[in-house]
Amino acid sequence: MDIRACLFDVFGTVVDWRSSVSRDLAAFAASRGLPPLDWLEFAVEWRKLYQPSMEEVRSGRRPFTVLDVLHRESLAVLLARYRLAGLPEADIDHMNRAWHRLDPWPDVLEGLARLKRKRIIAPCSNGNIALMVNLARRAGLPWDCILGAETARAYKPMPEAYLASCRQLGLPPSQVMMVAAHNGDLRAAKAQGLATAFVPRPLEHGPGQTTDLAADPACVDVPARDFVDLAVKLD
Amino acid sequence: MDIRACLFDVFGTVVDWRSSVSRDLAAFAASRGLPPLDWLEFAVEWRKLYQPSMEEVRSGRRPFTVLDVLHRESLAVLLARYRLAGLPEADIDHMNRAWHRLDPWPDVLEGLARLKRKRIIAPCSNGNIALMVNLARRAGLPWDCILGAETARAYKPMPEAYLASCRQLGLPPSQVMMVAAHNGDLRAAKAQGLATAFVPRPLEHGPGQTTDLAADPACVDVPARDFVDLAVKLD
Repeated sequence: MDIRACLFDVFGTVVDWRSSVSRDLAAFAASRGLPPLDWLEFAVEWRKLYQPSMEEVRSGRRPFTVLDVLHRESLAVLLARYRLAGLPEADIDHMNRAWHRLDPWPDVLEGLARLKRKRIIAPCSNGNIALMVNLARRAGLPWDCILGAETARAYKPMPEAYLASCRQLGLPPSQVMMVAAHNGDLRAAKAQGLATAFVPRPLEHGPGQTTDLAADPACVDVPARDFVDLAVKLD
Repeated sequence: MDIRACLFDVFGTVVDWRSSVSRDLAAFAASRGLPPLDWLEFAVEWRKLYQPSMEEVRSGRRPFTVLDVLHRESLAVLLARYRLAGLPEADIDHMNRAWHRLDPWPDVLEGLARLKRKRIIAPCSNGNIALMVNLARRAGLPWDCILGAETARAYKPMPEAYLASCRQLGLPPSQVMMVAAHNGDLRAAKAQGLATAFVPRPLEHGPGQTTDLAADPACVDVPARDFVDLAVKLD
């Protein structure tokens, strides 16, 4: 393997969206004096609307629309369901940008710094450019560039999301490694000829998680404990 | 002014393409034992084919094509003109990537580091993503993301090149500043509502340069001596 670039899934693989979104919303709700609410449940319900919202675009029923817009539409649905309709627009915008304020897992900063020494590192996320930039600046993620759904104009796991990212780096898929905590993402990348690495995030969905606890050998070239271990294995 | 992001022209403004390309090609030619040639002239001639090649795309006569491809077509024209046709493809590819190996002006690294503390920094160049990534990694340019012609699918000074970059950052043009050593670039950005800063690069075209020696007050909000001075002025 001659890996010139590592592409990363972000939600779940690089950052802990479940804890971060719920903590962010809980703090905001407290500052606004909103009625008490299970914000962990709210974050999980929000995330449940993620795949269906992208499926509208993947299916061709809707033209490409960035994730910030899809997130905000899903948020409006949830605010109504939780009887929080009628918040000021600026407050809804702030809540929507909770996805721009996600904390990385503990190994991420050291792992990315090591991986970056010898190869290009970039997200290949369904998050849009503004979301990825704001998230990276806050968390200190040293990406070389931002790739993914918005630059490809296609949502993973559509083939174009992976292929456009390789093309934009000027590299053949065989020299690009997709890194994710989700076997489904890696299966789709592998089908397009990318190399793959699996990093388990057994707490992404909280204690009791049952999915993606281990690499699927059918689609994973390099199983790693975390990003630091991946850097050691690739070096 | 509430500037949240600075976008940078790259060729000429961030990097010294004329010295860098000619030095790179001269070293490569020597290593290959090619006949002696004025590589400074060659670099300037190559650059002369830059605007006409992009004009094919701007005019709609040609679908969007990344700069690496346009550069390579122009290089083939020049190699024939200089009686260097017949070089191995790998050598031509290496020569073409001279544009990925450009040196920054002396103030750039310190200036970008300072500007980045409080705002997003990104190129808004006609160079493609792979070119910008390789250039940034080699020179140590700490971009937050890579924007420009390839993400906008439009070459400057087309309005879409500036507007797509603002939209992709999730910012209104009034909160985005275009930084360039070329008044024409700033005039086009200003017409789309961006703020503008001019930084003179009086040696871009070598000694005796007659163009863009000073800011045009009609389109420049902030004239600065260099990137460090710009950071001081914006802070």
